[in-house]
Amino acid sequence: MEFDLIARIRDRASTRDDVVLGIGDDAALLQVPPGRQLVVAMDTLNAGVHFPANTAPADIGWKALAVNLSDLAAMGAEPAWCTLSLSLPGGDAGFVDGFLDGFLELSALHGVALVGGDTTRGPLSVCVTAHGLVQPGRALRRAGATPGDDVWVTGTPGDAAAALAALQAGAAVDRALRVRLDRPQPRLAAGRALAGLASACIDVSDGLLADLGHICAASGVGACIELDRLPASPALSRFRPELRWPWQATGGDDYELCFTAPAAHRDAVAAVLAATGDTAATRIGMIDTSAGVGAQRPDGAPWAPAMQGFRHF
Amino acid sequence: MEFDLIARIRDRASTRDDVVLGIGDDAALLQVPPGRQLVVAMDTLNAGVHFPANTAPADIGWKALAVNLSDLAAMGAEPAWCTLSLSLPGGDAGFVDGFLDGFLELSALHGVALVGGDTTRGPLSVCVTAHGLVQPGRALRRAGATPGDDVWVTGTPGDAAAALAALQAGAAVDRALRVRLDRPQPRLAAGRALAGLASACIDVSDGLLADLGHICAASGVGACIELDRLPASPALSRFRPELRWPWQATGGDDYELCFTAPAAHRDAVAAVLAATGDTAATRIGMIDTSAGVGAQRPDGAPWAPAMQGFRHF
Repeated sequence: MEFDLIARIRDRASTRDDVVLGIGDDAALLQVPPGRQLVVAMDTLNAGVHFPANTAPADIGWKALAVNLSDLAAMGAEPAWCTLSLSLPGGDAGFVDGFLDGFLELSALHGVALVGGDTTRGPLSVCVTAHGLVQPGRALRRAGATPGDDVWVTGTPGDAAAALAALQAGAAVDRALRVRLDRPQPRLAAGRALAGLASACIDVSDGLLADLGHICAASGVGACIELDRLPASPALSRFRPELRWPWQATGGDDYELCFTAPAAHRDAVAAVLAATGDTAATRIGMIDTSAGVGAQRPDGAPWAPAMQGFRHF
Repeated sequence: MEFDLIARIRDRASTRDDVVLGIGDDAALLQVPPGRQLVVAMDTLNAGVHFPANTAPADIGWKALAVNLSDLAAMGAEPAWCTLSLSLPGGDAGFVDGFLDGFLELSALHGVALVGGDTTRGPLSVCVTAHGLVQPGRALRRAGATPGDDVWVTGTPGDAAAALAALQAGAAVDRALRVRLDRPQPRLAAGRALAGLASACIDVSDGLLADLGHICAASGVGACIELDRLPASPALSRFRPELRWPWQATGGDDYELCFTAPAAHRDAVAAVLAATGDTAATRIGMIDTSAGVGAQRPDGAPWAPAMQGFRHF
């Protein structure tokens, strides 16, 4: 049965010129171009933990690849190849077909070739490894933020958390919010455009404050964000600030990029992002010499969320 | 909690000069040496499916890496880096410490750096991606076997299956057999030595006949093996042939290499393997023009196993 599933996957996977040997041998054989470093990210999605149990197979496929491509985006890398390990309770060809619809739709969008992996029996779980390429010295890292740098975020964080909150409350979910939970857009063009301009970068998977905290920890700095600067999507703008701030500041799963850049680069950042046509970014705060990440209400008072970041355990 | 676990892993992982950025950022950054192709394998082990529930954490760690390094061995590649995705029901630091004991023991043996991955909540599952390097044109593949080629196997297949059979029967398990189930030795030195000599190669994970069948399918040939040529370990030799043949011919989990080579290379194959000090190999049959893989009893009669190969679903 595994071999039928692998054949099913191989038949639909596209390839690239730099794939010497793709799906179907003991391992894939890949040609890394000269003058490029290899960027490798690996993330797993487990049913009921990383996606709601009723998520459509195509959305699971999309998201499993998206969260990995988002890591490449946060490094400023160009995506190239991926491998997929799919654990399924049974050899459900219908699930696999639907899963591949979403997975391969996103991989085609970004020219990523699926080159290998395995299918195994087990509780529903999807592990993906994404491989990207970057010029030496151009990769964006978490370390590098300096006091005085602006803090930026792409897109409109909080939409996915709002959708999840509605789902968990058994309420109707706004379609515009749900699509942000199920089909996050990895900010690959933005990440590549920011290489050389941003001083540090991370993708927002655990929540804006938590992920900015990772930048601060790696850079040995602190940060403060201003809540009224947080960009809100039209769907999220319908909620009053006190309700949406926690989603925007601490909700995970948006896969926007949070990055820092010297104030001297403000115009350049806006210009290169506009040129990509990917997404705009908003200045939401500043790196400082404090010990952590703070958030400020419009009246200047400090704001503390009830829960900060997605808890993995 | 995830961050504690990641710190725990990072503190113990060793590195290599070609790791530009290891554990702790959004992705790893790696320097592929010029004149090498990248070899990528990815395999998942799920509790109760790929290892018995009572397996020691250190043995799970060893095996999760071993099965991936075995894929690199089957390609004739030199291992370099790996990433690890660990799904755990809870954030059990004791399990992780034990797991790392085995995982890092094996990675140190072969100079493999653990450069990234993630830890997530979920049913116990371990996914590893292994990266290796090979000179262009030197990789061993499943395709390439030609009628008249010898069929070889390294080591003594069947030990792991015998251990598993005893475990499943609730019987006492010979320690020498159990260690072959829990701590398979990836035949990396043998694989590298065979590059340029073997015409096709695969690692025996599903069972000798099944995996030889993959070589035959990829090469468009058939094969016949002679049961009385199958090498048996001292522990396995204590079983009568009718009992051990199924383990040797169809038992998975040994992670020996099954390969084919022109008869003109017989002496060279034996010589290069002896020079590695890794393992010897035994000629067990021949590639032919038949439609599949057959096995022959000592009296020349065909032999059909009750079950052929590990069933994934």
